[in-house]
Amino acid sequence: MNSPTTAPADTACDAESAGRGRAALSVTASPEAAVTAARVLARCRDLVRPSLSAAIGRLHPWPGEMAAFSLGWCEVGGGPTDGSYEGKGLRQALAVLCAEAAEAPGESAVAGAVAVELVHTFSLLHDDIMDGDGTRRQRETVWKAYGTGPAVLAGDALFALAVQTLAEAPGPHTAAAVCRLSGTLSGLVRGQAEDLLFAARPWTGPGAVRMDEYCAMAELKTGTLLGCAAALGGLLGGAPAPTVAALDRAGRHLGVAFQAVDDLLGIWGDPAVTGKPVYGDLRQRKKTHPVLAALAGDGLRTRELAALLNSPLPLDDAGAMRAAALVEACGGRSATLDEARRRLDAARACLRSVPLAPRAALEIEVLLASLLHRRM
Amino acid sequence: MNSPTTAPADTACDAESAGRGRAALSVTASPEAAVTAARVLARCRDLVRPSLSAAIGRLHPWPGEMAAFSLGWCEVGGGPTDGSYEGKGLRQALAVLCAEAAEAPGESAVAGAVAVELVHTFSLLHDDIMDGDGTRRQRETVWKAYGTGPAVLAGDALFALAVQTLAEAPGPHTAAAVCRLSGTLSGLVRGQAEDLLFAARPWTGPGAVRMDEYCAMAELKTGTLLGCAAALGGLLGGAPAPTVAALDRAGRHLGVAFQAVDDLLGIWGDPAVTGKPVYGDLRQRKKTHPVLAALAGDGLRTRELAALLNSPLPLDDAGAMRAAALVEACGGRSATLDEARRRLDAARACLRSVPLAPRAALEIEVLLASLLHRRM
Repeated sequence: MNSPTTAPADTACDAESAGRGRAALSVTASPEAAVTAARVLARCRDLVRPSLSAAIGRLHPWPGEMAAFSLGWCEVGGGPTDGSYEGKGLRQALAVLCAEAAEAPGESAVAGAVAVELVHTFSLLHDDIMDGDGTRRQRETVWKAYGTGPAVLAGDALFALAVQTLAEAPGPHTAAAVCRLSGTLSGLVRGQAEDLLFAARPWTGPGAVRMDEYCAMAELKTGTLLGCAAALGGLLGGAPAPTVAALDRAGRHLGVAFQAVDDLLGIWGDPAVTGKPVYGDLRQRKKTHPVLAALAGDGLRTRELAALLNSPLPLDDAGAMRAAALVEACGGRSATLDEARRRLDAARACLRSVPLAPRAALEIEVLLASLLHRRM
Repeated sequence: MNSPTTAPADTACDAESAGRGRAALSVTASPEAAVTAARVLARCRDLVRPSLSAAIGRLHPWPGEMAAFSLGWCEVGGGPTDGSYEGKGLRQALAVLCAEAAEAPGESAVAGAVAVELVHTFSLLHDDIMDGDGTRRQRETVWKAYGTGPAVLAGDALFALAVQTLAEAPGPHTAAAVCRLSGTLSGLVRGQAEDLLFAARPWTGPGAVRMDEYCAMAELKTGTLLGCAAALGGLLGGAPAPTVAALDRAGRHLGVAFQAVDDLLGIWGDPAVTGKPVYGDLRQRKKTHPVLAALAGDGLRTRELAALLNSPLPLDDAGAMRAAALVEACGGRSATLDEARRRLDAARACLRSVPLAPRAALEIEVLLASLLHRRM
């Protein structure tokens, strides 16, 4: 990251996190909170949807259909869906809520919300090509359904549209917002590059991926855009620079937490809910947080796990189940859950370090807490 | 194209073109002019190179190497080249010259010049994936040398870097420049979508690609970025809006002329110079200007050409040579050369419709004339 607008999350406010944050987590992570999180997400989605839909409508019809398919709005060919393939809309919600946290109407952040949702969709689309992933949200991925070339095109179209939507938005903060978004795009690509390169590195020994490298990658790949979403909301809502910076840092911590939970779901998630194969990340031998944490020890079970992962043979059902059990027995699962909690606490501490409108701040915290317990 | 900053090229100033422009062409298209064009390109390249190189240096090393390979600066693995794989640098030159045409130092356009070169490199890289082209400038394309996934990543990195470079540039015209660039990106993608869809359409009959559709595609795919390069130069050089608009239109016409010459080289170019296979575009059955022009007639030879192109068999050497001869006999080659001349005249008329610094205007016209006689 070269841009001064995209400083790493590890800053002074992190130190405040432990006590207050963890206590708050246990209070807000109730079933009621999950319902409220769903409502918050729905309210923000309803606010942003007309503009997001209008933006997609500006695309050439062909990449436009692929974009709508990727957003879960249609089937291949353009036919309607029941909406069950849509994403959570976390990024657009963060943008809207952070504008409201700056005492501005949520509407002021809509161009930013649209831009971050478009960038998110672009990155899923291109990452699925690079990772060779054929399934997402219980459906074929775009490259699988439409072909690799067309999927590259659709991603490019979304990327361009994201920048155009924000650059054409009226208002005094547009230039700063575009500058932040462009730094974010570079950060995302850098994170994806690291993630792809991890695949070629050994599981153990001097060349193995260190946990700090993994967390830096997760912050770039997932945290940068969540930080951007939050910061754009604040920026477009007229928040002062220290508040925008704190929102950015909060989003980055949230991103690492989100990735950690994603890693847990990639091994122990319910395939019927996640839409991904059981133990999928282990079968694909992805270098994820729980596996790297498990391999950080040096007991017998750690060595058995390393041997399984190093084997040139594909992992069959029994092998994948054994690997998952070993990751858990070696403390990988609990270490990842701890990392997610720690990062959510740090995000909370960032939010509490600056003055925010109470109602919006509460809604953001409810969203944060719900992410730890998400099932997809 | 939805942006008001990217109006189509067909405007009033085109009407002025015929007489004056064609006369000027015969004067400037001398061997001396070609030498001068090479010098103009070299001067602009030297001016832009440090910033372009610094921008590439900001990339993650992996996409950074692919970007440098694509720019002709290194071999696979990062080893040095002799520079013979570099592009002409037409876009950066246009940006620099158009700033100078606005009485500003060429330096004022460098961020714009870097951005358009990065976007050009991005688009070659992703288009080669989509088109399945394995060779460019006598070397393997990036996807062929590094793999499809990494090439998608490298393109994304260049795309993001282009926007970031321009968005972070100081100066009063940055926001307008970024807005123009983002509209251009959307236009490029739209042009590429049209071009890809042409492949599935019939050669003749009601669904055939019409010449106006072809020219609209060429203007989007090639003209948009050349127009952007010229307009960014004027804009960053402080030119008034009518001048910027005229520069944009000139660049768009130039783009169609450039594409027309490209189409001629794709059939009749010297493979030793172009680095592409002999009759390559015919073998790939690309819908190019000369072929579409040849098919617009209805004689015996037109029908023989259509039958050859409609045949499910690959075109062997004799078939490709026969197809090329038929395209020429049906007037396709001369029609395309006429289109290129007409568009260069129109570009010249646009340039002469606004006040420009004489020296820079002369250099731009020399560049324009040289493009008609280029061999690669």
